[in-house]
Amino acid sequence: MPRVRVNNIAVSVDGYAAGPDQSLENPIGVGGSRLHEWLFPTRSFREMQGRVGGEEGPDNDFVAAGNLGVGATIMGRNMFGPIRGPWADEQWRGWWGEEPPYHHPVYVLTNHPRDPITMLGGTVFHFVTDGIHAALKQALDAADGQDVKIAGGVSTIQQYLRAGLVDELEVAIAPVLLGGGERLFSGLDGGLAGFECTDFVGTTMALHARFARSGA
Amino acid sequence: MPRVRVNNIAVSVDGYAAGPDQSLENPIGVGGSRLHEWLFPTRSFREMQGRVGGEEGPDNDFVAAGNLGVGATIMGRNMFGPIRGPWADEQWRGWWGEEPPYHHPVYVLTNHPRDPITMLGGTVFHFVTDGIHAALKQALDAADGQDVKIAGGVSTIQQYLRAGLVDELEVAIAPVLLGGGERLFSGLDGGLAGFECTDFVGTTMALHARFARSGA
Repeated sequence: MPRVRVNNIAVSVDGYAAGPDQSLENPIGVGGSRLHEWLFPTRSFREMQGRVGGEEGPDNDFVAAGNLGVGATIMGRNMFGPIRGPWADEQWRGWWGEEPPYHHPVYVLTNHPRDPITMLGGTVFHFVTDGIHAALKQALDAADGQDVKIAGGVSTIQQYLRAGLVDELEVAIAPVLLGGGERLFSGLDGGLAGFECTDFVGTTMALHARFARSGA
Repeated sequence: MPRVRVNNIAVSVDGYAAGPDQSLENPIGVGGSRLHEWLFPTRSFREMQGRVGGEEGPDNDFVAAGNLGVGATIMGRNMFGPIRGPWADEQWRGWWGEEPPYHHPVYVLTNHPRDPITMLGGTVFHFVTDGIHAALKQALDAADGQDVKIAGGVSTIQQYLRAGLVDELEVAIAPVLLGGGERLFSGLDGGLAGFECTDFVGTTMALHARFARSGA
């Protein structure tokens, strides 16, 4: 059975997935980049950016596993780009250049319709205006037996958790106290019920904790 | 310089130091005991309970270090006992039997005066009715150059953090999602500013993260 997965979401020890005072210049808030220091040097992350080399070991293993077996991705509109409201023009094509690191269909949740965008390397951005269930159905169809990844941001992940639609939830806790920002674990209304820890691996850079629903 | 320390506070991956629905029968809430599974088998914890044997290794090292060099302890009234309001009688003498594991003066924050209680083994419970600063002053005097530990509960720790009085803050993150309860990192109003991670050690049972103020 294909699963719906949330992988490698970086949070601070005090529970924030983004720092305070998010802005266009500072999309993950003040101090937010400190959440990802474990990620940047890994071989798998560098590979996603078209670079070679990088560190191996458990941090890298979690990055690699988080991308493995994923046939479609869902993301919120703010993860796709900084534009708010109706699409002013069709110029914005995501943060990732002409060949995004997805290589499969990506469903962007938005209230504003837009035609699909076919990028290089197999990524196609689809814009879904009829909600999280519709997006998930399309993504599962497109994934063709592989898993669907809920990539982010926080509010998108929370919506899927609250609806009880997530089978696997994995976070990477960074050795940082942000003191404020956007909480990952907030307003979930019982959406975490039934999750049991399946992996719990600490490195000097992050603690990787993976949870799955009993029986999932 | 003596330091003010918070050590070995167990929290879930989603940030709760106690589960939902706390009650007299369930003082750390539903599921709350799962936060302490890393603690119970350790040699140092068993020793505090007058038992012998137990596990060594990093979990035990953090328990032992958390008790080392502490000359006085501060705790909230709810950590001392389940009684609310004025002390009905003098019968309640803490959860710990006639020889509590502190072996030094313990300052209990309360709104209701009560005479000190001298226990076996060096523990004396003092009841402080004039606030957290007064309690800290008395504890530092009594500690005579050693550190002061803020033992808990959550609201007492939060008050000292909010007032900027804590030099070292250490948590043990357990591989559990509680889904609700009492958050440790909440309402701190900038009280975490300046803390940097000094230790970050994961075991199969817990992730130990210790933070200290820069220069502290």
